[in-house]
Amino acid sequence: MEVSQGASQLKNAAQLQLYGESFASRFLIGSALYPSPAIMRDAVKASAASLVTLSLRRQDPANRLGQNFWQEIQSLGCQLLPNTAGCKSAEEAINLAEMSREIFNTAWIKLEVIGDDYNLQPDPFELLKAASELIKRGFKVLPYSTDDLILCLRLRDAGCEAIMPWGSPIGTGLGLMNDYALRTLRERLPDTPLIIDAGLGAPSDAAQAMELGFDGVLLNTAVAKALDPVVMASAFKLAIESGRLAYQAGLILPRQNASPSTSPIGQPFWQHK
Amino acid sequence: MEVSQGASQLKNAAQLQLYGESFASRFLIGSALYPSPAIMRDAVKASAASLVTLSLRRQDPANRLGQNFWQEIQSLGCQLLPNTAGCKSAEEAINLAEMSREIFNTAWIKLEVIGDDYNLQPDPFELLKAASELIKRGFKVLPYSTDDLILCLRLRDAGCEAIMPWGSPIGTGLGLMNDYALRTLRERLPDTPLIIDAGLGAPSDAAQAMELGFDGVLLNTAVAKALDPVVMASAFKLAIESGRLAYQAGLILPRQNASPSTSPIGQPFWQHK
Amino acid sequence: MEVSQGASQLKNAAQLQLYGESFASRFLIGSALYPSPAIMRDAVKASAASLVTLSLRRQDPANRLGQNFWQEIQSLGCQLLPNTAGCKSAEEAINLAEMSREIFNTAWIKLEVIGDDYNLQPDPFELLKAASELIKRGFKVLPYSTDDLILCLRLRDAGCEAIMPWGSPIGTGLGLMNDYALRTLRERLPDTPLIIDAGLGAPSDAAQAMELGFDGVLLNTAVAKALDPVVMASAFKLAIESGRLAYQAGLILPRQNASPSTSPIGQPFWQHK
Amino acid sequence: MEVSQGASQLKNAAQLQLYGESFASRFLIGSALYPSPAIMRDAVKASAASLVTLSLRRQDPANRLGQNFWQEIQSLGCQLLPNTAGCKSAEEAINLAEMSREIFNTAWIKLEVIGDDYNLQPDPFELLKAASELIKRGFKVLPYSTDDLILCLRLRDAGCEAIMPWGSPIGTGLGLMNDYALRTLRERLPDTPLIIDAGLGAPSDAAQAMELGFDGVLLNTAVAKALDPVVMASAFKLAIESGRLAYQAGLILPRQNASPSTSPIGQPFWQHK
Repeated sequence: MEVSQGASQLKNAAQLQLYGESFASRFLIGSALYPSPAIMRDAVKASAASLVTLSLRRQDPANRLGQNFWQEIQSLGCQLLPNTAGCKSAEEAINLAEMSREIFNTAWIKLEVIGDDYNLQPDPFELLKAASELIKRGFKVLPYSTDDLILCLRLRDAGCEAIMPWGSPIGTGLGLMNDYALRTLRERLPDTPLIIDAGLGAPSDAAQAMELGFDGVLLNTAVAKALDPVVMASAFKLAIESGRLAYQAGLILPRQNASPSTSPIGQPFWQHK
Repeated sequence: MEVSQGASQLKNAAQLQLYGESFASRFLIGSALYPSPAIMRDAVKASAASLVTLSLRRQDPANRLGQNFWQEIQSLGCQLLPNTAGCKSAEEAINLAEMSREIFNTAWIKLEVIGDDYNLQPDPFELLKAASELIKRGFKVLPYSTDDLILCLRLRDAGCEAIMPWGSPIGTGLGLMNDYALRTLRERLPDTPLIIDAGLGAPSDAAQAMELGFDGVLLNTAVAKALDPVVMASAFKLAIESGRLAYQAGLILPRQNASPSTSPIGQPFWQHK
Repeated sequence: MEVSQGASQLKNAAQLQLYGESFASRFLIGSALYPSPAIMRDAVKASAASLVTLSLRRQDPANRLGQNFWQEIQSLGCQLLPNTAGCKSAEEAINLAEMSREIFNTAWIKLEVIGDDYNLQPDPFELLKAASELIKRGFKVLPYSTDDLILCLRLRDAGCEAIMPWGSPIGTGLGLMNDYALRTLRERLPDTPLIIDAGLGAPSDAAQAMELGFDGVLLNTAVAKALDPVVMASAFKLAIESGRLAYQAGLILPRQNASPSTSPIGQPFWQHK
Repeated sequence: MEVSQGASQLKNAAQLQLYGESFASRFLIGSALYPSPAIMRDAVKASAASLVTLSLRRQDPANRLGQNFWQEIQSLGCQLLPNTAGCKSAEEAINLAEMSREIFNTAWIKLEVIGDDYNLQPDPFELLKAASELIKRGFKVLPYSTDDLILCLRLRDAGCEAIMPWGSPIGTGLGLMNDYALRTLRERLPDTPLIIDAGLGAPSDAAQAMELGFDGVLLNTAVAKALDPVVMASAFKLAIESGRLAYQAGLILPRQNASPSTSPIGQPFWQHK
């Protein structure tokens, strides 16, 4: 009885909804920094990710080699998610998004507008400007955002049907830097898919994000720079599934006082009667 | 290549070694506090745990109903691990262990000697005394311990081939209360299987313990008191596997400064040539 | 010798520089929420704060009773810092700032533009707009800001000669919610006075902020809602002085391994020779 | 009215009671690791500590130079607290305590029995043995302990009229490593003076310990190894006073939701009527 309920929850748990499309996995993965293309392919495969991000290099718009990569990704059953990594203004990001749409033949865009070379954080002002414009132009925008509630509310109001707040700065592996802000986002944006993007270091970070009710996780460095990226991709896959199940199964609340798991008096239920 | 390496690691990852025996799962689960026997069975099944703890009630040594439960547990392919929950002195624990050995026909014992009704922590003095004596009497002792390094070293020297330090007090769900102490234990007892026992609240806690290199996790409340214990058992199962894989795959080290996952200059490797 | 050096540092430590003015104390205190006006006066006195914030209620621009309060504050040797608490748009805040300037006869303004009724956080967009305009109109603006680096950089570029990032949401007492973000701010804005405003609960929070190198602390609830606000004001005063001294005295760096304070071999230095 | 209450509390706050004696300061300081004897003297003076710990080196029992140091310490109005740093067994510690009593002419002893060279933690078994014996021999024992509740209860039952749990391992500067354990100790030993000994790095750590209700703080490395030990001693002095006042003044409780310090409707109390 409970098992079948569990099984059906498990099924629903796998369905991430973004801009009206369903994705079998809640894991979004990056394609950079791997030791080799072969390891990247194997890691993406092991991750079972539905979406794989890729950056079209600005200096090389005519280069079609990216398409080989794209085809490879697609042969793994993944959908490509071009990103605007490295862009520092709304204008630059919009231009790169347009080129990516043309070359990769997709309206999906992971929108990055970096505001600072030091912490690589999103620029809230330029990000909102770019997101608003790209939504108007028909893009399916997944903005890489800070955990600022006001910024996320404005992105939603501008038409973003999903938002990707950071866990911590890109590549740091610091995990969920501001638990309070993330809980607030989740509580205040209950109907917007929220995906933690950047900063996760360990599968336990990913599980924690999912336990908080986030809809998915996007990461790159923690897998690509692991000693064994392929096994680490499996580890994150399991952690994301685990965290989602736990969110649905209803976690116990932490309490300050110990409580015996074995009743100090009497007998366990199965000895009753 | 990496995938098959990953697969073989995955296989080894499942083998927990305790007192010369191999266990397919690194998850040890408690059998108390479930809403019903049926849910308990389903949760144990979903957990795929190898060892299931059970308390023989002292006031009812002649009661054989416990054996029904035992047979049920065994029919799930699990091994029974009697415990001495509720004992407050070495003498009491030793007596209960002897009765458990006779009734359940097993030399395995999860040794609990509680020192305080408030935080239900192990009494280091009585625990060491009981463990030493039970080892001499041929028991396979898994002591529920604090995270005190000296205590754990003494338990090892007394012949315990595995030790189970707490994460935090029983039933609190506070997770890993003292990260520093746990890391120290792992570092100083590299050859002794260490299993985190008590205090975990969420699968991310279990994943974190495994990422630190612990050999297994024992818990009860976090599953039994979840809204849906069966699904939560699955969630912990995945988290424990995930954390073990991550430990083996080599986690990235946290760093203070952001680092772009997409190189700011030039092209990704797959566009080279 | 060292003592007198300490004493001179202590003297410098007390000098907070804001818009070219020197303040003897690094403690800024709020004037709301106290059990009574008398307790408020005594707490402000015990705090030895240089600046006391006060809100001119918008619905009561003609009310001159505020001036009585102002005179009382001044009789304690404090400077008044009007604030725009409760304003939700740049326009509203600018209007209230203008009224405050006229009524209180001061160009100083603590600029609050709240973006959300739930977490009472600053609205980064409206805040920047209001700050830019008020700077142009000759105000000495102390903006209540988030810990977002980009926002703080823009406020500085707009002419703010000091910025007041939050520790955590107003009235929560959660302390420094995002240590990483605050350290980044301090590192990236070395020449801008930064004052932690809001969210502190205990003197240890204030000491921590000062140890990180922040220039001052502004708070209200943690004093006004303490069981004994007057004693708590003294406690915060000492903590802020302590944290400033510690910052100047050069804290030891945390280390993972223990290190004996007493050398294991030989004799202490005073027994040598 | 409130001010005088504050003042009287302030007076009581300074009175630490140990073995029936009153001490004007709640700061206990170590005498090792300073750059020079002169800086040590100045730092001890700046700390205003009542008790100063000192190790009699075992290999030099006849050396009377320690007495010069002792006289110097006394000339600062401090009481000497000999310690047994470096001892690894009850026997060794008892012997050194006896020698210290004879040479320094004091029954006070800071009892250290180190169980491990790596984390320099107390050995709970040897510590309890040594404390019990020294109490019988008429010593005023201040045991350096872990934060283990059972150990602390046994030390109390053995006659220790004060206990000194660690914050974290000696010299690490990690602060309060296990907040939960320390809160439990304070709650369960309400009538035993508890002094945090070891591991503190910053004045905010000391303030936090005092805010939790601990009766005093003993430290050495964080002052002696600071860039300016004398100023750092002042900083810790203020922090300890601050934390004690805050404990007495009644801290606000942290809350999850923001709460305006300025009422959103109506007028502040001083404008009423």
